[in-house]
Amino acid sequence: MPVNLSPLDAATLAPIAGVRLGIAQAGVRKANRDDLTVLLLDPGASVAGVFTQNRFCAAPVQVCIEHLAHHAEQALAIRALVINTGNANAGTGLPGLLAARETCAALAAELHCDPRAILPFSTGVILEPLPVERVVAALPGAIAGAEPGRWADAARAIMTTDTMPKAVSRTVTIQGQRVSVTGISKGAGMIRPNMATMLGFMATDAAIPQALLARWTREIAQHSFNRITIDGDTSTNDSFVLIASGAVPLGLTNQTPASHPAMDLADAGGAQSAGAGEQLLAVLIEVARELAQAIVRDGEGATKFITIDVEGAGTEAEAALVAYAIAHSPLVKTAFFASDPNLGRILAAIGYAGINDLDVGRVDVWLDEVRVARSGGRDPQYREEDGQRIMRQAEITIRVVLGRGQACTTVWTCDLSHDYVSINADYRS
Amino acid sequence: MPVNLSPLDAATLAPIAGVRLGIAQAGVRKANRDDLTVLLLDPGASVAGVFTQNRFCAAPVQVCIEHLAHHAEQALAIRALVINTGNANAGTGLPGLLAARETCAALAAELHCDPRAILPFSTGVILEPLPVERVVAALPGAIAGAEPGRWADAARAIMTTDTMPKAVSRTVTIQGQRVSVTGISKGAGMIRPNMATMLGFMATDAAIPQALLARWTREIAQHSFNRITIDGDTSTNDSFVLIASGAVPLGLTNQTPASHPAMDLADAGGAQSAGAGEQLLAVLIEVARELAQAIVRDGEGATKFITIDVEGAGTEAEAALVAYAIAHSPLVKTAFFASDPNLGRILAAIGYAGINDLDVGRVDVWLDEVRVARSGGRDPQYREEDGQRIMRQAEITIRVVLGRGQACTTVWTCDLSHDYVSINADYRS
Repeated sequence: MPVNLSPLDAATLAPIAGVRLGIAQAGVRKANRDDLTVLLLDPGASVAGVFTQNRFCAAPVQVCIEHLAHHAEQALAIRALVINTGNANAGTGLPGLLAARETCAALAAELHCDPRAILPFSTGVILEPLPVERVVAALPGAIAGAEPGRWADAARAIMTTDTMPKAVSRTVTIQGQRVSVTGISKGAGMIRPNMATMLGFMATDAAIPQALLARWTREIAQHSFNRITIDGDTSTNDSFVLIASGAVPLGLTNQTPASHPAMDLADAGGAQSAGAGEQLLAVLIEVARELAQAIVRDGEGATKFITIDVEGAGTEAEAALVAYAIAHSPLVKTAFFASDPNLGRILAAIGYAGINDLDVGRVDVWLDEVRVARSGGRDPQYREEDGQRIMRQAEITIRVVLGRGQACTTVWTCDLSHDYVSINADYRS
Repeated sequence: MPVNLSPLDAATLAPIAGVRLGIAQAGVRKANRDDLTVLLLDPGASVAGVFTQNRFCAAPVQVCIEHLAHHAEQALAIRALVINTGNANAGTGLPGLLAARETCAALAAELHCDPRAILPFSTGVILEPLPVERVVAALPGAIAGAEPGRWADAARAIMTTDTMPKAVSRTVTIQGQRVSVTGISKGAGMIRPNMATMLGFMATDAAIPQALLARWTREIAQHSFNRITIDGDTSTNDSFVLIASGAVPLGLTNQTPASHPAMDLADAGGAQSAGAGEQLLAVLIEVARELAQAIVRDGEGATKFITIDVEGAGTEAEAALVAYAIAHSPLVKTAFFASDPNLGRILAAIGYAGINDLDVGRVDVWLDEVRVARSGGRDPQYREEDGQRIMRQAEITIRVVLGRGQACTTVWTCDLSHDYVSINADYRS
């Protein structure tokens, strides 16, 4: 059961002018399920993406990076995205690369465009050949049914072990114009994105020039998808793509400065004093965070949604070391699953995180508003029943204050349950 | 159920001249179980240890490091080790440090020696106060019952979530003299030793001068306890101690060179041409490896014993990065639990291990004698049924050839099962 993740209401998802979505059943791995999605873009859209840092990056990721380079450097329009689930087309060598290119060529032929105008994505099992002929055969049906209002269908069609589809939408007024942002994501397992997640797609009808879009995409990923982890396994296929269809001109230029990520996101859209770029970036980050958090809420076997705030670090990288050490510790994760305040495990994770000159005598640890450890030892005021009460909640914040400086970061993760083991012991069967 | 771990036969454990072991029930955490162990050393023993690199290192570890420094620098004899289970005395701040010192003082008073002649060890729950008065009260009983033949009793008394006691012994002939090595260890969870494991104690009757012993202890740990992992959680209490009681003179000096670890351990003790130092070190490494592997075989919830050989690396550190990425991947571990040859997960782990310039086109992956991936993609000869056959075994070797250089390493680990989650969700209850 996902943690506080509302069922998807398709009516809440704003269509994005210039973007149509089509779905088909290609039978990639299983029959009778929607497993192929196309996003068709009108000419004039800007597209940017960030992708996995896994060296075994999937064939479609390699092709995406190549095609986006053409888009950015030669202004070659991106006209479509094609996404299959059921097979990752990773660890497949040259045949896998040819399969990804064949998919692009087939879709380009249908759309009468250059194959480099297509971005391919795959998710599913690694090390197995992609049944490319079945993907190609299903493309015409997907194109024929493409409509702007099918974001919810697409959210469903890209799922693997996800139990619920994930989509988020916001419509705000910027400079007197209505601007919409809609996105979908999928996750569940092999989730410790490094540059992006497996998979996130967002579109806005705002016009954002290409170089600014590329810069913002990296910044948005850094404060959303790149701050979640389920099992510490960085996927071969992580991809996060942001589309700006260009229907709403806001006068943004490539010189528009990126806002500082520490801005108060609660004010997003309402901060009338902020510039258009600042307002739009805030909404984009808000949508991306909600999509990223939805992946954690629906993490394989998750029963708890855990926010890890690390403060007082010397650098943000140092804060991230500590946050990820806690987030990846199987012992911490199983204790949260059991609602057992065995909180020494958090101290142990802080201690081995890799800060070699950490003075543990300055470290405080909180669970929500309860201080558990003070100056490196058990807080004399700490009572087991207070820890127990917090641990029973479905949403918990671990706050670690390192006492070294002013840097901080936040990572979102979930617990480790029997269901995680069951799901991953049975995934291919 | 531990993986191929034989029940302990006390008769196979050679007593070590100059070392007596005593056991008592202190009621540290639970009543009516042996939870306190003392090792009493005759004067003249050399002792060296390596300890956790966790910054939240436990109070007894801090005291051990201090007392061993006196031993090494001022030749102050070490006269006893005292080990409690049920409480780690970690994350306990100054009160914890005082409790560890009080334990040393009480044992020193019983033995009429300097408190700095005592090495204290604790294992169990973190962040809870050590009931030092119960430990102190049980010391006289433990001392009174101390005998050279109680290694098996000690192996049982230091257990926490271990399901079987772990002890290994060898007696070999070096320079015409019989030399014995006996050791015990415990592990089960929070096992990814960094410098040593939680806990390993070995003793030999050979005379080894202090500086050589210290050097050898680091080298032995590096090729045994520092190459195992169960859950990637480096404990606050890891300690590996090697005692040389000095009964058998072998003419070793502090200038005796350390043998290369790559020597063929199968010849240990039998290599008559090798020098005494080389022969003895080989036996010590052999015993340490078997103790370390026993910890993995009895890892929390383990059903498979997995050897990860990484070859063709540029450096040993690089090989270790890859080996640990595979060993810590929850997805790899659950696939092994399920006997599911979902081997793309191994490729994904290699890809995110952190070798940024890895050419995946040169990577081969083997399961025992079956080549699964060749030149970065699925081996065309690989058949799923061959992978399936190997995955069903209780002992499996993953061999990764990186194609970058000549360096290699080996890491031992286990799978991730439902029982791991159950054990760690229930550990304190």
